[in-house]
Amino acid sequence: MLKIALVGFGNVGKSFTKVLINRAAELTRLGLEPCVVGVIASRGGLINDKCISSRMLMELVNKGLYNAFNFRVIDLMDLIKLKPDIAVVSIPPSYRTGEPNLTIYRLLMSEGTSVITADKTGLALAYWELINESKARGVFLGFTATVMAGTPVIQLIKGLRGRVVENIQGVLNATSNYVLTLVENGLTMSEAIKRAIEDKIAEPDPSIDLGGLDAAAKATILANVLGLNVSLRNVNVQSLMNLNDDYVKESTRRGVRIKQVASIDLPNRVISVKPMEVPVNSVLGSITGNYNALIIRLNDGREITVIGPTGPAEATAEVMFSDLLEYTDLLLTMGKRIKG
Amino acid sequence: MLKIALVGFGNVGKSFTKVLINRAAELTRLGLEPCVVGVIASRGGLINDKCISSRMLMELVNKGLYNAFNFRVIDLMDLIKLKPDIAVVSIPPSYRTGEPNLTIYRLLMSEGTSVITADKTGLALAYWELINESKARGVFLGFTATVMAGTPVIQLIKGLRGRVVENIQGVLNATSNYVLTLVENGLTMSEAIKRAIEDKIAEPDPSIDLGGLDAAAKATILANVLGLNVSLRNVNVQSLMNLNDDYVKESTRRGVRIKQVASIDLPNRVISVKPMEVPVNSVLGSITGNYNALIIRLNDGREITVIGPTGPAEATAEVMFSDLLEYTDLLLTMGKRIKG
Repeated sequence: MLKIALVGFGNVGKSFTKVLINRAAELTRLGLEPCVVGVIASRGGLINDKCISSRMLMELVNKGLYNAFNFRVIDLMDLIKLKPDIAVVSIPPSYRTGEPNLTIYRLLMSEGTSVITADKTGLALAYWELINESKARGVFLGFTATVMAGTPVIQLIKGLRGRVVENIQGVLNATSNYVLTLVENGLTMSEAIKRAIEDKIAEPDPSIDLGGLDAAAKATILANVLGLNVSLRNVNVQSLMNLNDDYVKESTRRGVRIKQVASIDLPNRVISVKPMEVPVNSVLGSITGNYNALIIRLNDGREITVIGPTGPAEATAEVMFSDLLEYTDLLLTMGKRIKG
Repeated sequence: MLKIALVGFGNVGKSFTKVLINRAAELTRLGLEPCVVGVIASRGGLINDKCISSRMLMELVNKGLYNAFNFRVIDLMDLIKLKPDIAVVSIPPSYRTGEPNLTIYRLLMSEGTSVITADKTGLALAYWELINESKARGVFLGFTATVMAGTPVIQLIKGLRGRVVENIQGVLNATSNYVLTLVENGLTMSEAIKRAIEDKIAEPDPSIDLGGLDAAAKATILANVLGLNVSLRNVNVQSLMNLNDDYVKESTRRGVRIKQVASIDLPNRVISVKPMEVPVNSVLGSITGNYNALIIRLNDGREITVIGPTGPAEATAEVMFSDLLEYTDLLLTMGKRIKG
């Protein structure tokens, strides 16, 4: 039996729940039947140490957690008492503090519960503390969905730990793509931002995406995976909200396009996010809409290019389910026999 | 202490040994000091349960294993008696049988030794047998270097197990790129093949690369990682060696290029490798030389594109070292504490 806790029940949490219901048989086939012992969000939730039924879970997805007849005002500690094997966390954090997620991860891991999360901020602020804690406690920490969401580029980057990476450049924020394309097409920056909010592409407060903090958090995680010890606080971030409209509009005439580019210079340990001119026909220059791209330059001069979709919530949830499959496999393999 | 056995000592084995010597400190920092207890190839090798010194290893790299003063005619069983934690296997197998590698994997795993390999054939012929055996024995099986070698695309594919992949198309064999480019530039097919052998790009027997078996083995592994149960024997393979020279030469005039394309149709469980016309400016059409590319189409209509270098041996060895870092991390994390 694999005891699962769901922490957070917004779009991603709901999507994950649907994936889990539809694909429970895959976990059972691996050797562990999933059992959701609790679902909570900021105001409370429900717990059931005999497993919440799929029917009840589907009802929560359709009607909302707070409308469930057995909803109670409970907190994480009530859930932890049921000793879940793994918690799937999808609570949006504060970019300044990483909270409440950092506290949630620490509590869960200290009780031996593994964590899968789509929140980039906690990892971007305290990567090595969390990794070392997960090792010390012998728990799994899955965070594939934090960068490029629908594209598991984190896994590819993990596979590069043995290679020597010189630098990485990427377009990692889709909202910025959207806004810059609107400005290229004639809107002013403030009109474009307003439109992106109306189209539900940008958050009501667009400053995290357009200001560069979202891309900075993603780049920070990639850098740490490759062995650097850097925090989101050390990233040089330059907003694109102050760009001159005409500068953006006329750049294509010069064969370049303005993109929000995240750069990681590994030998010098410098990460930056800023608006940059890139050739229109280059990989970064041709990325639009809901796509992200990464160019990874190795010390032998060769490059790895990855282009793929970020979100939507369904894709993020499916990548979190990949983490759950990986965790289950590892538990059944490496957990079985201790060598060395 | 992490007891390592090196099985195979050609270009990849030697390159791996150099990486291991240069970067031993990274393993020590993770928490396990590496100790090479044996190096063997087909005719024998040397073993030392007190660890072979870095100096001796470097001498083996420079002078060759068979010239070592303490070289002995030993076999795998002599090495297994030292109970290595992990074996790094780089012996070229037969594409027909997967041997001797399949026998080597089975012997190692049955004795509780984890395996890292760059050999695609064993996995392409007996993927699930090997995976299930590794789970049953609680050992790690690392094979990131089997597909695209220098580009850890296997890891990205593992991260897609939770997503629904419709199909994958890829250019997975660099020798075919090389030969087809020479034909486009005016050589006949047989001249191009001769040149590729002279330039040490193609093997003396080029039929595995140009015939499609190499790409077929890689595609088979990718399909199995995504949950299919397919063998290399079931792949439809069509050689490019019989292509008409003029057809290849004149294709670019029609805006297309002939490439050896591997295709995986997941819903129908069909894998094929054959020469195909692809648009000159497409991702697959613009791949040349030592690069490979994959296009992964998801069920939501979106695509993930990965372009990256295959080999050379140094890159392959570095990716195998990534597997060793992952193994070490897992051993220290998931091996520590058994939950669930």
